[in-house]
Amino acid sequence: MSVPASDLGTAHIGVTGLAVMGRNLARNFARHGYTVAVHNRTFARTQSLVAEHAADGTFVAAESMADFVAALERPRKVVIMVKAGPATDAVIDELVPLLEPGDIVVDAGNAHFPDTVRREAALRALGLHFVGTGVSGGEEGALNGPSIMPGGTRESYASLGPILEAISAKVDGEPCCTYVGPGGAGHFVKMVHNGIEYADMQLIAEAYDLLRHGLGASAGEIGEVFAAWNTGDLESFLIEITADVLQHVDAATGRPFVDVVADAAEQKGTGRWTVQNALDLGVPITGIAEATFARALSGSAPQRAAARGVLPADTVAWHVPEPGAFIEDVRLALYASKVVAYSQGFDQIAAASAQFGWDIDRGAMARIWRGGCIIRARFLDRITQAYARDPELPLLLADPYFSGAVGNGVAAWRRVVAAAATHGVPTPAFSSSLAYYDGVRAERLPANLIQAQRDFFGAHTYRRVDREGVFHTEWSGDRSETAE
Amino acid sequence: MSVPASDLGTAHIGVTGLAVMGRNLARNFARHGYTVAVHNRTFARTQSLVAEHAADGTFVAAESMADFVAALERPRKVVIMVKAGPATDAVIDELVPLLEPGDIVVDAGNAHFPDTVRREAALRALGLHFVGTGVSGGEEGALNGPSIMPGGTRESYASLGPILEAISAKVDGEPCCTYVGPGGAGHFVKMVHNGIEYADMQLIAEAYDLLRHGLGASAGEIGEVFAAWNTGDLESFLIEITADVLQHVDAATGRPFVDVVADAAEQKGTGRWTVQNALDLGVPITGIAEATFARALSGSAPQRAAARGVLPADTVAWHVPEPGAFIEDVRLALYASKVVAYSQGFDQIAAASAQFGWDIDRGAMARIWRGGCIIRARFLDRITQAYARDPELPLLLADPYFSGAVGNGVAAWRRVVAAAATHGVPTPAFSSSLAYYDGVRAERLPANLIQAQRDFFGAHTYRRVDREGVFHTEWSGDRSETAE
Repeated sequence: MSVPASDLGTAHIGVTGLAVMGRNLARNFARHGYTVAVHNRTFARTQSLVAEHAADGTFVAAESMADFVAALERPRKVVIMVKAGPATDAVIDELVPLLEPGDIVVDAGNAHFPDTVRREAALRALGLHFVGTGVSGGEEGALNGPSIMPGGTRESYASLGPILEAISAKVDGEPCCTYVGPGGAGHFVKMVHNGIEYADMQLIAEAYDLLRHGLGASAGEIGEVFAAWNTGDLESFLIEITADVLQHVDAATGRPFVDVVADAAEQKGTGRWTVQNALDLGVPITGIAEATFARALSGSAPQRAAARGVLPADTVAWHVPEPGAFIEDVRLALYASKVVAYSQGFDQIAAASAQFGWDIDRGAMARIWRGGCIIRARFLDRITQAYARDPELPLLLADPYFSGAVGNGVAAWRRVVAAAATHGVPTPAFSSSLAYYDGVRAERLPANLIQAQRDFFGAHTYRRVDREGVFHTEWSGDRSETAE
Repeated sequence: MSVPASDLGTAHIGVTGLAVMGRNLARNFARHGYTVAVHNRTFARTQSLVAEHAADGTFVAAESMADFVAALERPRKVVIMVKAGPATDAVIDELVPLLEPGDIVVDAGNAHFPDTVRREAALRALGLHFVGTGVSGGEEGALNGPSIMPGGTRESYASLGPILEAISAKVDGEPCCTYVGPGGAGHFVKMVHNGIEYADMQLIAEAYDLLRHGLGASAGEIGEVFAAWNTGDLESFLIEITADVLQHVDAATGRPFVDVVADAAEQKGTGRWTVQNALDLGVPITGIAEATFARALSGSAPQRAAARGVLPADTVAWHVPEPGAFIEDVRLALYASKVVAYSQGFDQIAAASAQFGWDIDRGAMARIWRGGCIIRARFLDRITQAYARDPELPLLLADPYFSGAVGNGVAAWRRVVAAAATHGVPTPAFSSSLAYYDGVRAERLPANLIQAQRDFFGAHTYRRVDREGVFHTEWSGDRSETAE
């Protein structure tokens, strides 16, 4: 059903920016009984949405931004779904003079969270609510139920939240949407979600590569292994589609599909943002970092061309004696590495939450990621439970369930990482995750030597294990120690 | 000798900011026969420099910035050595109105290169030369010969360069100073130098940790190993001071010094900047990234406390059967990992040089790092030679010398990384460097699977190995393939 734009002030929510994501979100709202004002820079797109999808519910097609705003009931709720960056600012600038205090502007695009922080502050000064919200799940999720991570004021969530929860994915009857925290918290959590997604995908790729090299298995055979894994602890959307993709056959050649796909992975920037932010916060997220760099390496064509055939492998041929045991080792290593990646990501959320005063409930984040989004997985329930046991848990890995689960697999994990090193299969994320595990549990790290070196060449001082204080040794003098 | 500030216009160069680095640079200039105008926010510090170090040469003590500028011959050369950030901007703002077109402002502090790019552009618009220069070597280097990495215009280098070369370290009669490139190139190269320094230090720390765990050796015994290593390919300042530091005994306890130093490494930010920039450039510098994160992990006290005693090691006791062979394996692994870290760092310099149009001569960078700076090493000659053989070398690792040297050690490297994984010793930088080596040389990486997944859930498209173009499969439809 379509209502003329002259029927003003009745729409529950508006969506501006009707490319596929905005279009699908608008349809999702309409399907849930909301009257949706829709607007796009070119009106033809708005008209086609209303013409093609009238069966979804009630749309109000607005040609101008003024008509669009006028069509909304108060407080107005406007969802912007345009390209992140200057395009978002341009829409905000056009929208703001038309709004009144108390209205709510929702940026559902992929903004970098510092931009969201800036925009939220600017609109707050005008008496408006600005909600930067993560929306995960792609086109499919936008239409049928995404995972939604809204930031901004708690006040705005009182009226906006029920609408977002209604259109979100549901798992066990619970919506995959909750209030995340003030300011840029929503887009921040979405960024970390994407960073974890990078790690998850790289770990799966390394598992595939290990099975390929260790067993000489075909893509289809490896796909069957992933399909079996998807019935256990690893059950997740990414494992499921991996099984599917690996078993897909290229129609043009009759070869396994993945064998004809070029091995250069691309990226759109959220992995990079996640790692850059973790460096600012001082949180070691090595799994996500290695995954991000692994994509960069795969696309480093001149370097790969220069190295190929020139750098000696110096490995012996790899014949795995017991395929079944090896497959189980890789599965355990994948699960353990995945727990590390999530533990690191949740550490980053905790650090940002503390730094920016966002008070993010980590267990709730795991809960709203169980459906709708790319990293949806059975496993996330375990994370919610861990934070329910201890909301202040300093390290997800140290939760009794996870330390037990990883502990069960650690011998296998060590075998897999050692075998990869021995046989020349690059497993940067598996290896890095194990190194993190051994690092965080270490009684004593060799960082003492680094601090001693820093004091030697730069007088950067050090602390001692046996008493409080900050110390310096006169390395170029009599080597006496002074306390600062 | 001290000249009153009223003798105007005769000083060859000026230094403002007389904390220990500025003071030592000023003395270094004076010792090389230059008349040095000196200035500090508090005049007492200026007076004490002149009073205490008159034997070094000729200083002109200026109380005001105006007197300081007036004391300089034209074109004026002013070296600013104050804290990076707002303090540098404040000094520039005070200085600029007193200068004339053609004068040269040198920022010798630890500026982040984007700040240098901004300042250079601003001063260029006023007809002034702004030279952001890296200075490495700490207090000692500043006084006796640092490695100097000046950016800015080539024109400024014509008059400034000879003075900087004179006070720089010398190796084989060559100055450890050369023109780096326009704009922020000097501070950029210094940043990467520091990033490599992070990797170098972490690799040394991991080698120490392996010897500690594998051999049960004392710090002093390990110090002897490093002292022996310093007579071969690994000869470098960092290996030399490692040997020294490991053999130092704590006077208070009689224990090895490093055993009483707390194992939490600190950082001042250049490692972080290096990794953040590499992410922007898309250059995988995994060794530097792991080193930076390893420092962060060492300082993550709550996480370490939560993990310690909770996360199972599940390793068997480690008894290295042949200590001599193991030590040689670790040496070879350290050398190979170090080559990777440098190869990655030089890749980053090449990428930035291309992106910003800096035209940086990588071989020259290795040459000026041979003396004065923290990463000074015999090994750097090999890098200069590699770029002499091929100035466009796409990957340092692929140079015949380095592929040969690393190839000789790759079996040992594999044994060491596998042993670390097996025995629970965290070696993130060793492992990551080997994974990079195996990744860059791989005929085929598993990034094909990642691209296939991305196409599946996000319609991000892929390329094929058998024909040109960009493709998408209709995963939720009939699975036909379309070319874009």
